[in-house]
Amino acid sequence: MQLIRMTWQGQPCWGELDGGRVHLRAGMLGERSGQTVPYDPAALLAPAEPTKIVCVGRNYLDHIRELGNDRGGLPTEPGIFLKGPNALAEPGGAVRRPDWTQSFHFEGELAAVIGVRASGLSEASALAVVAGYTCALDLTARDLQKADLQWFRAKAADRFCPLGPHLVTGLDPADLRVQTRVNGEVRQDSRTRHMIFGLPQILAYVTRYVTLEPGDVVLTGTPEGVGPLHSGDVVEVEVEGVGVLRTPIV
Amino acid sequence: MQLIRMTWQGQPCWGELDGGRVHLRAGMLGERSGQTVPYDPAALLAPAEPTKIVCVGRNYLDHIRELGNDRGGLPTEPGIFLKGPNALAEPGGAVRRPDWTQSFHFEGELAAVIGVRASGLSEASALAVVAGYTCALDLTARDLQKADLQWFRAKAADRFCPLGPHLVTGLDPADLRVQTRVNGEVRQDSRTRHMIFGLPQILAYVTRYVTLEPGDVVLTGTPEGVGPLHSGDVVEVEVEGVGVLRTPIV
Repeated sequence: MQLIRMTWQGQPCWGELDGGRVHLRAGMLGERSGQTVPYDPAALLAPAEPTKIVCVGRNYLDHIRELGNDRGGLPTEPGIFLKGPNALAEPGGAVRRPDWTQSFHFEGELAAVIGVRASGLSEASALAVVAGYTCALDLTARDLQKADLQWFRAKAADRFCPLGPHLVTGLDPADLRVQTRVNGEVRQDSRTRHMIFGLPQILAYVTRYVTLEPGDVVLTGTPEGVGPLHSGDVVEVEVEGVGVLRTPIV
Repeated sequence: MQLIRMTWQGQPCWGELDGGRVHLRAGMLGERSGQTVPYDPAALLAPAEPTKIVCVGRNYLDHIRELGNDRGGLPTEPGIFLKGPNALAEPGGAVRRPDWTQSFHFEGELAAVIGVRASGLSEASALAVVAGYTCALDLTARDLQKADLQWFRAKAADRFCPLGPHLVTGLDPADLRVQTRVNGEVRQDSRTRHMIFGLPQILAYVTRYVTLEPGDVVLTGTPEGVGPLHSGDVVEVEVEGVGVLRTPIV
């Protein structure tokens, strides 16, 4: 099933996509309201209402190598950092290239959206708390990521996390193709089986320390091929079985 | 005025403290509802409903020196990091010492709670967006803070941010005494005028990158004197003009 969040008659609402129609529902996991409305891609919102966005750095070996971060050996634990909800941007929405970074990078990723409050998960049961999967663009000010001790402005700035287009349920995240294109040219192309820490391991690790709430977003890391973006570029993140997240840079 | 958030008849609500009575109000900055109820310190909740908790590291020179972080010179910009809303703990509430850190430290701080959405603030106008001030205990797993690249589990774990007891309006944050006591013994004792970056500078810096939302919490950094906590300790953070935030460690 494909869940969407969209603006309808001026209000944000959730729905189930059914061809060109949307069955509205009471919240991400709520019942159908009975109302059916036309699907309008231009009205889509990011398909999550998080209290936090939990991200994993350095989770694909080839990406660790391309940034020269492999000198200390491979990570023995997931390297987690946070973005706030203000980082979300809607699918299709433009993102302004900030004037305070000289190195504004794309990172295409698989994202999971949490469906139920979760603490102390085991790896075996972890995926049961995921409501669905979508595409994420983890925008990064690479120069400030290197300059700053903590990645606040490098990773958590306004609109640094386009998310969408849809939230897809019933997907197995173990081996999905993740591809990022810039102006139609393939720049990242890998599969989630190349993650160092798979999603069950990430969720078990995170919930040892922090409770995940319904709506929270978990980004799973980016593969090799990251690079700079310029005004006028169009980034597409495609996750197999999910769809294409398109982000114009202005 | 002293605003509080408390549980009343099973529901969280906001109110104005008036001696031993509380005038309930519709939200942090809402109108009085007309209902007045008894003040019950045991029913207090953290006086904020944040979308994020924005923190400043290394903002008092003597604290930078005590941790040996002054070798690279003084910071030229505020060092910002995030906690999620799950880090909040209510005033008076116990916090369990985690079994995954060998060095669980207290850091007493002045906190500001934001009243209106704020972006691109100037230093001159920044304090106008603050709804009020309170005390914060920035709990820190010091060993993991040193071991990890990003301070996720070191700083953002569940209940790592006790906050309260009250939100005090109409206060000038420029020169307030900040004192932390452990089991009655004074361990930190400084004044906010010793901050390297004052609150107007912090707010102008943060809102250059990230929009602050009503309810967001900004922690301003901790002075010299941090140290380890053990089960059975009671931490008190007192900010002049605000009150005492008491946290038993269990």
